[in-house]
Amino acid sequence: MSSSWVDIDPASDFSLANIPFGIISTAEDQTPRVAVAIGSHVLDLKALAANANLAALFPGIDGLTPALSSPSLNAFAQLGRPVHRQVRAALQDLLATNTQHSALLRDNAALRQRALLPQTAVQMHLPMEIGDYTDFYAGYHHAVAVGRMFRGADNALQPNYLHLPVGYHGRASSIVVSGTPVRRPVGQILLADPKMPAPMPEVAPSRKLDMELELGCFISRPNAMGEAIAVGEADEGHVFGYVLLNDWSARDVQMWEYVPLGPFNGKNFASTISPWVVLADALEPFRAGGVENRTVLHEYLREGREDGVFDITLEVDLTTAEGDTTTIGRTSSKHLLWSFPQMIAHHTLGGCPMRTGDLLGSGTISGPGGQGESGSLLEMTENGRKEVLLRGTDARTFLRDGDSITLRGFCGAENGRVGFGECRGKIAGAAQTRR
Amino acid sequence: MSSSWVDIDPASDFSLANIPFGIISTAEDQTPRVAVAIGSHVLDLKALAANANLAALFPGIDGLTPALSSPSLNAFAQLGRPVHRQVRAALQDLLATNTQHSALLRDNAALRQRALLPQTAVQMHLPMEIGDYTDFYAGYHHAVAVGRMFRGADNALQPNYLHLPVGYHGRASSIVVSGTPVRRPVGQILLADPKMPAPMPEVAPSRKLDMELELGCFISRPNAMGEAIAVGEADEGHVFGYVLLNDWSARDVQMWEYVPLGPFNGKNFASTISPWVVLADALEPFRAGGVENRTVLHEYLREGREDGVFDITLEVDLTTAEGDTTTIGRTSSKHLLWSFPQMIAHHTLGGCPMRTGDLLGSGTISGPGGQGESGSLLEMTENGRKEVLLRGTDARTFLRDGDSITLRGFCGAENGRVGFGECRGKIAGAAQTRR
Repeated sequence: MSSSWVDIDPASDFSLANIPFGIISTAEDQTPRVAVAIGSHVLDLKALAANANLAALFPGIDGLTPALSSPSLNAFAQLGRPVHRQVRAALQDLLATNTQHSALLRDNAALRQRALLPQTAVQMHLPMEIGDYTDFYAGYHHAVAVGRMFRGADNALQPNYLHLPVGYHGRASSIVVSGTPVRRPVGQILLADPKMPAPMPEVAPSRKLDMELELGCFISRPNAMGEAIAVGEADEGHVFGYVLLNDWSARDVQMWEYVPLGPFNGKNFASTISPWVVLADALEPFRAGGVENRTVLHEYLREGREDGVFDITLEVDLTTAEGDTTTIGRTSSKHLLWSFPQMIAHHTLGGCPMRTGDLLGSGTISGPGGQGESGSLLEMTENGRKEVLLRGTDARTFLRDGDSITLRGFCGAENGRVGFGECRGKIAGAAQTRR
Repeated sequence: MSSSWVDIDPASDFSLANIPFGIISTAEDQTPRVAVAIGSHVLDLKALAANANLAALFPGIDGLTPALSSPSLNAFAQLGRPVHRQVRAALQDLLATNTQHSALLRDNAALRQRALLPQTAVQMHLPMEIGDYTDFYAGYHHAVAVGRMFRGADNALQPNYLHLPVGYHGRASSIVVSGTPVRRPVGQILLADPKMPAPMPEVAPSRKLDMELELGCFISRPNAMGEAIAVGEADEGHVFGYVLLNDWSARDVQMWEYVPLGPFNGKNFASTISPWVVLADALEPFRAGGVENRTVLHEYLREGREDGVFDITLEVDLTTAEGDTTTIGRTSSKHLLWSFPQMIAHHTLGGCPMRTGDLLGSGTISGPGGQGESGSLLEMTENGRKEVLLRGTDARTFLRDGDSITLRGFCGAENGRVGFGECRGKIAGAAQTRR
């Protein structure tokens, strides 16, 4: 990768090798619109399109200009991966040193002034209009650890787990962008054994508020209802890009409510995503093998490649109300049993329609190494039985009001890092409601 | 209720007491737009608004004219229940014999020609743009029957069932309007006992394709994220209206996939709703007590009324490919343990945001009387162990390709019936996919 004429910190997630897409607004123009991140700046693509003749940069793409002025990335995503590839390459050309088009922006001070803005000057918005949100459970070590905790080592994995990507439908309306405060949910909670003859749940703010470290995948183009997406066509035909996803969970609420139909209020109060969508092509150099699955898979799940997932370094920081930050977890997205193409193929096997902007979560990602590699406090603390030590003398089992969780994810070496920026949320106190 | 100058069959679901809202298009004008049903006709409200001065009929409602030209009912729903009440009353006035405004349409042949159309001349569309779809499990006799089947009589109900309205998130993208063909889903199916040491699922078209008789409720106005909706404010503040809902289910797919996170591909291939939204006010005269719950409820679920549900007669017809129709189930929506306001209060307890157009399903509604009162073939056939006899010599355990299921629902006496029309779907053969 050549270097950029934009001054980029070598450790930046937003190197020239990345070019992630997001939705910004500014104090001067509060209309949400499309931008890409580059170093500590963003390039406002609506402003670029309005102030420069881009026909040479983006030749022959129908519908691109309106897509770049949209308040979400859906219209751009819908153009399909070959267009995303072409536009990303053109923007790399524009931002690189000494290429065919580098003079267009580099040497036009007025245009730079309008279109190249410091990230501190822009407000980030939810990047996509999300139709449906599905959360999978593909983090193998997480599934094993949680299964062992609740069902013992011999029954840790349910019989279906190695045969299909287990998933469930989440709540699209509760997905928020990084930085949005997350209110501690009130819920029905059973303190005693649920099998006692007369359970008496209480209604209270969750005492087991947790985070979940996940990778999210946005869908680009829809399938027709009733038509499955083949696993080999999912990536090129239907994947737009990736975000970090924190699927906040109220473990005590979930434990009481979830039989027999799955998680509900324990999950639907909020899920936070990072604001920049890293395009599928930007992650291609970082492919890796996932967790080995010795099960003989049905044909519709056979990818015919050994590198269906990505080796993205993932980190979880907990920042206390006092401002002290501790990295409590560090792992990799390679610890997935199923790839997103496999998830998509399974999701649509029965004909379920995907739409542009649908979000798929990987499920919590944990490494095999226990506490420090875990993607949830449930695992780190063995459901509250032991504490996670923080910087200084502080410690946690679950989250306190005022705590912030920041997820980070990146791959690649310095000067060429492809990262997600931050996925951050701070816990606000529970609402006063009738209980 | 006074009578109408429109010729209405006494048995029509769409009496003057009803006035349900839907989205139509015609061969002449293929733009979807708002209409109401009256007898065997529809009144095109966009055409009405364009061709008559309606200020006298609908005084002082901001945003009504654009809402009536919208391709979904969301904009109208968002205006709130006091507006829905006023508009419905005004339309009843317009369509009734000898009222203040009856001359406006009755005596204007050109306007009648443009706006009052036979139902046979219009195409019905999905009435709402559905953000999220949640399916509850509030049909008490269904939950008991299914629980008994899979867990025995002593453990039929899970410990949480009487304490909170159990529900899960469904798939909004798979909701279709009555008349849309439903393709038999392909899925992973385990024929043997899932607890055997090495389960070997097959991938095949579902052999246990079922229907579920439900009532659906559309949300009118949103709540702020983090703020619960009080049970006493849900009905007036957040309920738009009701439809019939057939939540098609592939029982064999569901059985293998659903642990530990709930139903997924067994449900997300299609759910069918009736096209006309019966406004909340139209059902008010038909309130009834639901199934008695002796559990001491938490305050947030206490409605302070004994008639939180409706006594709507519900019927299920099965029509074979040969065209023979048998009514296989007949029950009432009063067999719900939880009312929709209770479901809404519980859904938002932790702060989950509802949006205009969100759909809540009641869960399958069955009566206490066994086979003929059941809302699913799972119950009628005891999971395929006994047959449901059809007219002639035919019989079913689950649905065959070419079968149609038609749900009907209505209340009130002749000349004043408030009904839903049909909620119909015909089973098409499975897709040929890689398995």
